[in-house]
Amino acid sequence: MIETDILIIGAGPTGLFAVFEAGLLKLKCHILDALPQAGGQLSELYPKKPIYDIPGFPEVLAGDLVDNLMEQIKQFEPGFTLGERAETIVKQEDGSFIVTSNEGTEFHAKVVAIAGGLGSFEPRKPLIDGIAFYENKGIKYFIKDPEEFRDKRVVIAGGGDSALDWSIFLTDVASEVTLIHRRNEFRGALDSVEKVQELKDSGKIRMITPAEVVGLNGAEHIESIVIDENGAQRTIPTDYFIPLFGLTPKLGPIGNWGLEIEKNAIKVNNALDYQTNIPGIFAIGDVNTYPGKLKLILCGFHEATLMCQAAYQIINPGKRYVLKYTTVSGVDGFDGTRKEAPKAVVKAIV
Amino acid sequence: MIETDILIIGAGPTGLFAVFEAGLLKLKCHILDALPQAGGQLSELYPKKPIYDIPGFPEVLAGDLVDNLMEQIKQFEPGFTLGERAETIVKQEDGSFIVTSNEGTEFHAKVVAIAGGLGSFEPRKPLIDGIAFYENKGIKYFIKDPEEFRDKRVVIAGGGDSALDWSIFLTDVASEVTLIHRRNEFRGALDSVEKVQELKDSGKIRMITPAEVVGLNGAEHIESIVIDENGAQRTIPTDYFIPLFGLTPKLGPIGNWGLEIEKNAIKVNNALDYQTNIPGIFAIGDVNTYPGKLKLILCGFHEATLMCQAAYQIINPGKRYVLKYTTVSGVDGFDGTRKEAPKAVVKAIV
Ligand SMILES: Cc1cc2nc3c(=O)[nH]c(=O)nc-3n(C[C@H](O)[C@H](O)[C@H](O)COP(=O)(O)OP(=O)(O)OC[C@H]3O[C@@H](n4cnc5c(N)ncnc54)[C@H](O)[C@@H]3O)c2cc1C
Ligand SMILES: Cc1cc2nc3c(=O)[nH]c(=O)nc-3n(C[C@H](O)[C@H](O)[C@H](O)COP(=O)(O)OP(=O)(O)OC[C@H]3O[C@@H](n4cnc5c(N)ncnc54)[C@H](O)[C@@H]3O)c2cc1C
Repeated sequence: MIETDILIIGAGPTGLFAVFEAGLLKLKCHILDALPQAGGQLSELYPKKPIYDIPGFPEVLAGDLVDNLMEQIKQFEPGFTLGERAETIVKQEDGSFIVTSNEGTEFHAKVVAIAGGLGSFEPRKPLIDGIAFYENKGIKYFIKDPEEFRDKRVVIAGGGDSALDWSIFLTDVASEVTLIHRRNEFRGALDSVEKVQELKDSGKIRMITPAEVVGLNGAEHIESIVIDENGAQRTIPTDYFIPLFGLTPKLGPIGNWGLEIEKNAIKVNNALDYQTNIPGIFAIGDVNTYPGKLKLILCGFHEATLMCQAAYQIINPGKRYVLKYTTVSGVDGFDGTRKEAPKAVVKAIV
Repeated sequence: MIETDILIIGAGPTGLFAVFEAGLLKLKCHILDALPQAGGQLSELYPKKPIYDIPGFPEVLAGDLVDNLMEQIKQFEPGFTLGERAETIVKQEDGSFIVTSNEGTEFHAKVVAIAGGLGSFEPRKPLIDGIAFYENKGIKYFIKDPEEFRDKRVVIAGGGDSALDWSIFLTDVASEVTLIHRRNEFRGALDSVEKVQELKDSGKIRMITPAEVVGLNGAEHIESIVIDENGAQRTIPTDYFIPLFGLTPKLGPIGNWGLEIEKNAIKVNNALDYQTNIPGIFAIGDVNTYPGKLKLILCGFHEATLMCQAAYQIINPGKRYVLKYTTVSGVDGFDGTRKEAPKAVVKAIV
């Protein structure tokens, strides 16, 4: 059982920044995300694209913004459970919550902040007979740890940035990389398309296009796949099959937690603290809705900040919190580090 | 008469960022501020201090944040009227407003956004007989354009950062710099104190401490000041006297505009759009209050963003606005420049 003050569901920008604001209030956070990495939509959908409307950044790459947020919250040592989805929640007698993930991990938190964005990102799975059997037995929809593929044969399927970028990356890791796509055309950053062309020309990536994977073989683990090229079928031996057909966000199990839902988002009290209809559960960022709601990163930051104040009151009933400026009071990390402004001196000039 | 879509009163971080969000909606802004420079409290009170709670910046100097915001809004070519205070407001029959400054400048705007922070910064004036007579005749409480002092004799009074920093700066501009303070001890950044010591030792700054300015002389313009050193008085010829005793923010005339005021701040509808009790007048950033309000920079950013959506509806009645992501749609400046993310290509690999 993981114990924490605030369990944050969703490691997007909103969830990450909540760790910082909670930390200023001396509240400890644990973050749970279905994706293998932090950053939510920014990391998963557009890490290399510039954002222009983050206040103070005339331009910032989505991936860099996530890195900056990770750096900013480091002092507050958040716990991370990645690659697991929040499944169920049970309110305890003392008002706290136990949340359980799809892998059975349990989290015990005084407050739950849902920062789930558009929902938990779920892979689009190809319709191939028996594919469910091979999940965890050679089929991967996400790449969590590329080292898993060290000196193995991998087949990647897909025609977008993820398929291109992982094919490039794995040429240095896997013993053999095959990229299969149902068309000759790929859609992605020019750089990536050109790099794959180059790796194909030098024999480091085997390309099979246009083609589709139609069958999977293997007793305990994938041993080969069957592909269809214009009606002709052949079998290709491989250790891993990685279909990268994109992710679709699904509100998913959280939709059944008894929260008021409107337009696939969780209704909150925006006139106060972004709390849901269940006291102690908050919803911040893209996942919530209220009159005038804008699904923007900067709004999530504000919502996270106000939410933490309310969480503080729940966790420290009756205690008065006086807002302190970081510039004036500095920031004391849970890791013992301290950030502080250079002090003014009082000094005679003689 | 200056015509604009949105008149923003206050060039602090909130007012500045409002220009960007308005620009995305193709609304033009003009900013009015009592201070001679943009940046509000950040520029006036702590430009060289780090802030730690701006999302995405593990640390940023207040002055740098202001520079970044100025860079970010440049594309939308805001008008600036600095060094003037909003004094009166008159609602027109068509729902628009005419605001007049203390210097008589008139602004005609469809929407007014008050981003006045803690209020208009007013200098603390020393109590010296006849001082009011010399305002604009050699007395300066702010330095707007240092070139004014080129080859002139200046006397600065004060013991804090402003007095220290301007004394240093003006040694390269003025023919003679005198710094007067009622104590020997100065309070400021160590760097600045040491630099002044150095300039004193090398004869570039004349220091008179402990001393106080007690009289002013001159027919049409200041010609000399009288100082008191432990009871002994003497006269020092000078062209300018610059008392830098700090600024105090005052809500001031805006307090009489018929807006609902609570705890020296303007009440707004935070459940919707940060509008005040007068339709068409919004209050954003430190100047407003609502249940759970936090006087933080990041909150002002959010409030400015939601305010602009409501302003859009007032200015374009009945028109529907569909939120666009800057990453996806790019940013079209009013100056003809365009920022945009590199486009994905669709390209065959052969
Ligand atoms: C192409 C594109 C361009 C964009 N451009 C801009 C822009 O220029 N400016 C801007 O402000 N915004 C932009 N956005 C929107 C911005 O990305 C979102 O507002 C932002 O990501 C919301 O952050 P969040 O933290 O609330 O949610 P997300 O970033 O969506 O993160 C939510 C996380 O929660 C996880 N999660 C959800 N449910 C569960 C569960 N049950 N268990 C475990 N984990 C769960 C998800 O896996 C996800 O990682 C853009 C979006 C896209 C797609
Ligand atoms: C020492 C210090 C440290 C701080 N540290 C932090 C921190 O770490 N993090 C954080 O988030 N916040 C911090 N703050 C608070 C932060 O500075 C404010 O939240 C922020 O400045 C508010 O921005 P604003 O744009 O709303 O108002 P302001 O910055 O106050 O700007 C308002 C402007 O409006 C002008 N104005 C007002 N009335 C009129 C009028 N009638 N006519 C013309 N002009 C007018 C004023 O002259 C001023 O320039 C700190 C503040 C101080 C003093």
